[in-house]
Amino acid sequence: MRAAAAAGREVFGYNRSVEGAQAAAADGFDATENIEKALKRAAKTGALIVLAVPVPALPIVLGRVRDIAPDCPLTDVTSVKGAVLDRVKSFGLLNRFVGGHPMAGTAQSGWSAGDAKLFVGAAWVLSVDNHVDPAIWATVMDLALDCGAIVVPAKSDEHDAAAAAISHLPHLLAEALAATAAGVPLAFAVAAGSFRDGTRVAATAPDLVRAMCEANAEQLLPALDKSIDLLRRARKSLAIDGSVADLVEEGHAARTRYSGFRRSQIVTIVIGSDGWREELAAAGRAGGVIKSALPVLGNPG
Amino acid sequence: MRAAAAAGREVFGYNRSVEGAQAAAADGFDATENIEKALKRAAKTGALIVLAVPVPALPIVLGRVRDIAPDCPLTDVTSVKGAVLDRVKSFGLLNRFVGGHPMAGTAQSGWSAGDAKLFVGAAWVLSVDNHVDPAIWATVMDLALDCGAIVVPAKSDEHDAAAAAISHLPHLLAEALAATAAGVPLAFAVAAGSFRDGTRVAATAPDLVRAMCEANAEQLLPALDKSIDLLRRARKSLAIDGSVADLVEEGHAARTRYSGFRRSQIVTIVIGSDGWREELAAAGRAGGVIKSALPVLGNPG
Repeated sequence: MRAAAAAGREVFGYNRSVEGAQAAAADGFDATENIEKALKRAAKTGALIVLAVPVPALPIVLGRVRDIAPDCPLTDVTSVKGAVLDRVKSFGLLNRFVGGHPMAGTAQSGWSAGDAKLFVGAAWVLSVDNHVDPAIWATVMDLALDCGAIVVPAKSDEHDAAAAAISHLPHLLAEALAATAAGVPLAFAVAAGSFRDGTRVAATAPDLVRAMCEANAEQLLPALDKSIDLLRRARKSLAIDGSVADLVEEGHAARTRYSGFRRSQIVTIVIGSDGWREELAAAGRAGGVIKSALPVLGNPG
Repeated sequence: MRAAAAAGREVFGYNRSVEGAQAAAADGFDATENIEKALKRAAKTGALIVLAVPVPALPIVLGRVRDIAPDCPLTDVTSVKGAVLDRVKSFGLLNRFVGGHPMAGTAQSGWSAGDAKLFVGAAWVLSVDNHVDPAIWATVMDLALDCGAIVVPAKSDEHDAAAAAISHLPHLLAEALAATAAGVPLAFAVAAGSFRDGTRVAATAPDLVRAMCEANAEQLLPALDKSIDLLRRARKSLAIDGSVADLVEEGHAARTRYSGFRRSQIVTIVIGSDGWREELAAAGRAGGVIKSALPVLGNPG
């Protein structure tokens, strides 16, 4: 709400918590704890609905959207895209939906944790799944750009595989590192930078870590298998040959590639043109991002 | 050399590299590339010899110490204590030796990478193995304190087990994380803080990572086994029950204990008194550190 309002947009919101809605209202925002009122107004004005609730709360909210505002364009900001897609589909809202995931946030939650600048410079993933409608995609892209984000186009399953590798797996490795060291008497007494950094995300509330990892089990399992396999091979090679060369060289080469990874700006793709979804997904994979609105087929430039 | 000289100590050094010795001399330090000359002077003055060479270079240097200055007190600053102890023993120098490991350094090496303040506030582990002589232990403790470090007393094998858990294992986990993500098309494009932190140490030169991990294989293997076991259990539980609760809760509890871990100052132990080595090892395990010189039995306070 803050970021969209700061961009000059008309914005109104619903929160099931009376305190949440009142806190936003106290800051001058148009917020209500009455979902029916909010959705009727959305239906009347054709507003873009942004779902910002955890996956388990989606069915209740989606049921109301289907009943009251089924024709509104619809997006979300949840960190696991496949699970959201399934639920949206089961409520018959797929044709109005474009999934989103702004890679921004803090460890805090609630109204007071927000910030109009939260999305500035952040990657905001937008799904380019086969079903997505060009006009709705452009509508959500405009919101993300208005909030100061850069848009990364991606298929939902590719997003989830990437999130498993770069977010969910690091959490599990950090938990394993902390738990292993805890069993070694002198470990905490001599711990320094590499341990502090390597376990930082293990300080995250267990419920949050479980929610993301468990909702993305399908994509997390192969990433976990790959890591376990790499570690087991290194273990074997260390025990037999006294060497960890293979893992260390592969890991270092990968980290070097990551350090050198450069984003490029996507400028030539026309939303709605033949194969636009595949083109955007390929560009996103290669590091392409949208920094200024792409044209939409049939719309005046 | 810089830190000891800054503390007002007489210090002289040897480096096999002519450039290294000349660079130190150019900065006003008493340095030579003639090991015989340096060791003869040490033997004559009863100087404390500080070995600061990698494990593979130890045999050559220890051979010269044995031949020229076998009665000098001897310490080292190498990161794996068991391997050093074995070599010192094989050269018959054990009774003059107290192993040390200052937990400080940079990714750079050579004379120009040094800094008189490098050890200020750093933990400097000193071994309290069964063989150590009280007077030599106190001599090395004084050096560490003069350099501004805090002294953590520890058995060599416990030091190595702790180093495996808090330094060597995090390197291998970071390598596995980087290597796993490298195989996922969109991963680098959406990577953020948890991935950057989790792979930071994978940017370390492979030779350095291999040298520490491989020299500490005996202690690293059980730590690696523990981590692999935790990850395999989590994998199984995620696949069967859709839950990673056990790992996440254990890891979070461990990280919370680490965050709350507080150092305390060791003040009541007298070096050389009955059971002093065991007392210091137990105090070190509990987070105790020496910040000001402990008394030595029989010495005037």
